[in-house]
Amino acid sequence: MKIDNPNPIQWQFSERASQLQSSFIREILKITQRPDIISFAGGLPSPLTFPVERMKASFDKVLSENGKVALQYGPTDGYAPLREWIAHSLSNEGARIAPEQILMTSGSQQALDLLGKVLIDEGSRVLVETPSYLGALQAFSVYRPEFASVDTDDHGLVPSSIDAVADGARLLYALPNFQNPTGRSLSIARRVELVETCARLGLPLIEDDPYGALSYKGAPFPKMLSMNPDGVIYMGSFSKVLTPGIRLGYVCAPLPLVRRLELAKQAADLHTATLTQMVVYDVIKDGFLEEHIPTIRTLYSKQCQAMLDAMDAFFPTSVHWTRPEGGMFIWVTLPKSIDAMKLLDQALAAKVAFVPGAPFYANDPETNTLRLSFVTVPPERIREGIAILGKLIAANLAE
Amino acid sequence: MKIDNPNPIQWQFSERASQLQSSFIREILKITQRPDIISFAGGLPSPLTFPVERMKASFDKVLSENGKVALQYGPTDGYAPLREWIAHSLSNEGARIAPEQILMTSGSQQALDLLGKVLIDEGSRVLVETPSYLGALQAFSVYRPEFASVDTDDHGLVPSSIDAVADGARLLYALPNFQNPTGRSLSIARRVELVETCARLGLPLIEDDPYGALSYKGAPFPKMLSMNPDGVIYMGSFSKVLTPGIRLGYVCAPLPLVRRLELAKQAADLHTATLTQMVVYDVIKDGFLEEHIPTIRTLYSKQCQAMLDAMDAFFPTSVHWTRPEGGMFIWVTLPKSIDAMKLLDQALAAKVAFVPGAPFYANDPETNTLRLSFVTVPPERIREGIAILGKLIAANLAE
Repeated sequence: MKIDNPNPIQWQFSERASQLQSSFIREILKITQRPDIISFAGGLPSPLTFPVERMKASFDKVLSENGKVALQYGPTDGYAPLREWIAHSLSNEGARIAPEQILMTSGSQQALDLLGKVLIDEGSRVLVETPSYLGALQAFSVYRPEFASVDTDDHGLVPSSIDAVADGARLLYALPNFQNPTGRSLSIARRVELVETCARLGLPLIEDDPYGALSYKGAPFPKMLSMNPDGVIYMGSFSKVLTPGIRLGYVCAPLPLVRRLELAKQAADLHTATLTQMVVYDVIKDGFLEEHIPTIRTLYSKQCQAMLDAMDAFFPTSVHWTRPEGGMFIWVTLPKSIDAMKLLDQALAAKVAFVPGAPFYANDPETNTLRLSFVTVPPERIREGIAILGKLIAANLAE
Repeated sequence: MKIDNPNPIQWQFSERASQLQSSFIREILKITQRPDIISFAGGLPSPLTFPVERMKASFDKVLSENGKVALQYGPTDGYAPLREWIAHSLSNEGARIAPEQILMTSGSQQALDLLGKVLIDEGSRVLVETPSYLGALQAFSVYRPEFASVDTDDHGLVPSSIDAVADGARLLYALPNFQNPTGRSLSIARRVELVETCARLGLPLIEDDPYGALSYKGAPFPKMLSMNPDGVIYMGSFSKVLTPGIRLGYVCAPLPLVRRLELAKQAADLHTATLTQMVVYDVIKDGFLEEHIPTIRTLYSKQCQAMLDAMDAFFPTSVHWTRPEGGMFIWVTLPKSIDAMKLLDQALAAKVAFVPGAPFYANDPETNTLRLSFVTVPPERIREGIAILGKLIAANLAE
């Protein structure tokens, strides 16, 4: 019973919708998921690390023992025992974190969206690293800020460069451990300086920490959260230490902020799946992560070393790259004459993929950079792919 | 290693964050979950209807057969077989819906948030029913629209009243089946008139349909989507026909809009849990809902009738209420002299709870209204609670 002669809609989108762009990475992923391509483009953790059987046992247990609660609507802030576990894991002798400070989110991407929603007005200044995590740039962009880039060097973000751009800033977003995209980590001295600088300026500091547990040497860096719990907003995720497809992360924030974030979450999706939270709590509550995370570190460390060895063997000496001590990514700086976007076209033709670095810059992209992920490719394929990339780079230099 | 003398942060929230208010219903729920209270306040489906064993079997099956895919990141638009199933279920001979028009969301609340994000600028006019679904008012409010209320009568939304308020409107939001909060349904004639009016005005019409399957008589009303697939945005949910705690809904929209919504979702939470989508598909793909939904209808219909019978017996004749033929709610209009908020205080003292009607109005609340849910209370307790309410109302009238 269709109506006659409908007037076609002239869609009028919001101004913020005009900011929406698809993630370049997600677009690349669509063409690089073919098995014949050696893809260093992914940001996906290795499925070899997924504790499928352990999680299956917990789904079965939670649904058997508590199914009707697990499948019902739940509180917006999250499943209380899991929030208590997280608060405890973030606390140390110097800094106690209360469960009330924890808001469970649908992946840490949602925490970024909620932080943008609650803290950013159109034109608000937002400070980010150079380069920065693309998902954060995307999430914040929706709220139409003015991004100001904080300088970085080989050791990561340079705290002394903050004052010059801090005027009127609403927040500083940093990813201090094995950063996506560079793989760099901030030294302890720089962390202290960063926290002190933000505290002096009264500037909220977001510490995004999806990879902190993936330190190949095992000893994690101290959290900036512990240095100033009243001024640091900490974001965590189960995506890299358990599995990403369940979409479970959290944000820890001072109470005035976390209450606003909770209201924003209520309007955004009511709450994160109860069942998922109960299952993750059941999986981790008795120390599972302490056994499990070292197996991820061992796998990633081995593949990282395989890639670094191959780069040493096959890349021209005028190419520079980071040597991560954890996480999932290596950052490559090519000679300035090479455009990584053009190199990608050549690489795809040779069945190798990576992500050009330009999209990771909020301002003034460096087009001679690129990101390599080593976690989903076995060592022999890593060597094969890096050899191809090395040849292509050399050919470009010889032109 | 805390830093010394941090400068306390003077939180500066975004202007939109100042719009955030906690749902009055969620606040009431906190005090009414005590077992000694007879609560008609909930909007929760009855856990008696949750197919726990069936879902447990599917979690086990999906994790056993396809665990590494189910636990990995997935596409933003959703799990393709589920989107195909939904598109097929929404299609009929007159109107074919393509899977590309379906975007899976983290509950239908997220669809409301994404629609607000993509369609509403500050000050944009948004048309809603009088009263309207509170969750929609909350989700849209974040984007700071100007709400204009469309008249309703005993038969629901009055399409002829749209023209007077349509100037510059970005969308009309309607919940045509067993509306939350009123329980009313639009007649077929009114649906046609509503769709024609919106089409004539080029006005996007949102058809929110969480309760459509819960028709006690079994025969669902025709979807407005089918009457004009190019102008109607349809929202569906698995919360009321399967379980709400998994947070799974969807929106079906014309392609130019759904692509924007997909980009907004990518920035908001990347994608909805892969595992959940694969499990729901496994549960429903072979016709499970056709057997399952009638059991929900039977339960709710019986409890609805118990409440209506009790109201006939115990409510003063000057009180009026709707007689729903599906869904979860009855809407009560008290004599104008009674303030439902004051009645709630008296009712809570007598261990009965309901939701006052005022929060459901975008403008000019009618304070003598209230919403009753009958789905989570057994018939004998319904009768007991309604008797108490009837006495309180009578006492107020005698004052």
